[in-house]
Amino acid sequence: METLQDLGEFGLINRIKNNTQIKQASTVYGIGDDAAVFDMGRNYGLISTDMLLEGIHFDLTYCPLRHLGYKAVAVNVSDIAAMNGIPKQITVSIGVSSKFDLPAIDELYEGIKAACEAYNIDLIGGDTCSSRQGLIISISVLGEVEKDKIAYRSGAKPNDILCVTGDLGAAYLGLQILEREKREFLENPNMQPKIEDKNYIIGRQLKPEGRTDIIHDLREINVVPTSMIDISDGLASEVLHLSANSGMGFNLFFDNIPVENQTLETSAEFNLNPINCVMNGGEDYELLMTFSQQDFEKVKGITEITPIGFVTQEKNNILVLNSGERTNITAQGWNHINKS
Amino acid sequence: METLQDLGEFGLINRIKNNTQIKQASTVYGIGDDAAVFDMGRNYGLISTDMLLEGIHFDLTYCPLRHLGYKAVAVNVSDIAAMNGIPKQITVSIGVSSKFDLPAIDELYEGIKAACEAYNIDLIGGDTCSSRQGLIISISVLGEVEKDKIAYRSGAKPNDILCVTGDLGAAYLGLQILEREKREFLENPNMQPKIEDKNYIIGRQLKPEGRTDIIHDLREINVVPTSMIDISDGLASEVLHLSANSGMGFNLFFDNIPVENQTLETSAEFNLNPINCVMNGGEDYELLMTFSQQDFEKVKGITEITPIGFVTQEKNNILVLNSGERTNITAQGWNHINKS
Repeated sequence: METLQDLGEFGLINRIKNNTQIKQASTVYGIGDDAAVFDMGRNYGLISTDMLLEGIHFDLTYCPLRHLGYKAVAVNVSDIAAMNGIPKQITVSIGVSSKFDLPAIDELYEGIKAACEAYNIDLIGGDTCSSRQGLIISISVLGEVEKDKIAYRSGAKPNDILCVTGDLGAAYLGLQILEREKREFLENPNMQPKIEDKNYIIGRQLKPEGRTDIIHDLREINVVPTSMIDISDGLASEVLHLSANSGMGFNLFFDNIPVENQTLETSAEFNLNPINCVMNGGEDYELLMTFSQQDFEKVKGITEITPIGFVTQEKNNILVLNSGERTNITAQGWNHINKS
Repeated sequence: METLQDLGEFGLINRIKNNTQIKQASTVYGIGDDAAVFDMGRNYGLISTDMLLEGIHFDLTYCPLRHLGYKAVAVNVSDIAAMNGIPKQITVSIGVSSKFDLPAIDELYEGIKAACEAYNIDLIGGDTCSSRQGLIISISVLGEVEKDKIAYRSGAKPNDILCVTGDLGAAYLGLQILEREKREFLENPNMQPKIEDKNYIIGRQLKPEGRTDIIHDLREINVVPTSMIDISDGLASEVLHLSANSGMGFNLFFDNIPVENQTLETSAEFNLNPINCVMNGGEDYELLMTFSQQDFEKVKGITEITPIGFVTQEKNNILVLNSGERTNITAQGWNHINKS
């Protein structure tokens, strides 16, 4: 008999999706993209939701509550950006166990408030309840997008240019640093942390940003990506989503993928293959998107967007290494990263 | 120093609300009613969210997963109904520990699906993740309401008629039966349950309904309540919310409040004061609303709506007992119900 473990998260989502019928005229797109889409009349409304559980998604040993509040909002904002939409409102539900006092809850909401200010969104509702075990955060975000500007995962066309924002792999290696410091602190509480030259990658792990700045940049040059997704589970996984939804293949050139020196140096320190960290690290919350060649000429002026490959009619997804070696892209997820 | 326990749930919500600024033009109403309101152009959009935690909000010893899925949707639907709105879409996020297998998750989603069919709403998104401790369900619901039909908690006027749908107190006494059967089963697993004449009140606990039927009835007679709220925490608590938000007082007549015989009989069996069960029992998910006297003439034809009191300019909230005795209404919440 098939088990939950066999299915995995994406399998479970597909199972739920396949068992779901859409009946409402106002439902434009249900399960299966970064956000669901509903008709608001002139514009499309967008909704996305994320649940964060203590001990699964975050570790309060090294994640300050203020940063956690900010990050919980940012990862939801990222899903709206991935539809080429602008986030507008959030609801925040929390379950809190007795180990949290009022100053702790205030700190969490300070981070949420800071993110609301940074992304210009309103906190409009939520739920608060007691939890028997640790902190639970569930956020839903509402966004809007003009009907002719929405970007799904499904619109990539042959010869479109595949691009990515920012740089990749840093958040995963920041997590490795934090986990190492935690282990060393538990062994020797008097130890001084060795993180002074790791600020960038630790910041990428603790305080990621949703790339609404890119959405505004694209509106200014009047370009709509042919397909888009945010990078939460790792570049490999997201390329495979665009491939499956668009019915296309992708050729990526590792040499073109933007990776910070601190990321490369730290992967070496941990004896981790940098290719695996970049392809399967996850939690980058950058945007992966495709543009028609014509639009790409206009996109070149946006320095935060880097071309890393192109779309092919054949459905093979291939990573071309610096050596010229071609490897098939497979999704491993961040917990399967192999030692180099 | 003030603690979370001092503040309580409503105090925490107020603290969050008072620390929140609304900046988006499309935000119509934020924290503080049954649902938040955003502008969709022709209509208002509504969003509400509820988090349900195993061991806090439900006990899988006696709550079948299918019923739990249905109830989780129904209580969200109830919040949209309380704004005089029609529910349209939901997102469902779940955290699942390893004790749940695939058939268990399927059963939960069967209940969610049955509720989507009953209320004509679409499941359009969500999140699935591993939990270390039991089942977590977080649902957000989207609804719509014509701008001239929205009902807030704040619109009650002097001499308006206070009405309630269905009957009250049953869900609380259903819970007492289920808790008693659980205790007796734990003491003697061979025991036969003694619940055959308790179907109504057990059903009210395990499978409540959001009263969208009433919203459709009111549209047919073209009447909009002057104020409305759903009864989740008990009649007393909800009357006090309408009072605070409308700046009015309420006189309620206990003799007029609809209570089923099974509810009364069971309160006697448990030696509980039926007044406390009705006023503070909670989980009824009925609607409490006010109508102008003129509109109330039209409402009389809806048999599921019962007048139970009226609105006064003075802000005192009074329950008139059958004996003629007048008592001030105070919110105790379901966990403070005194023995009679």
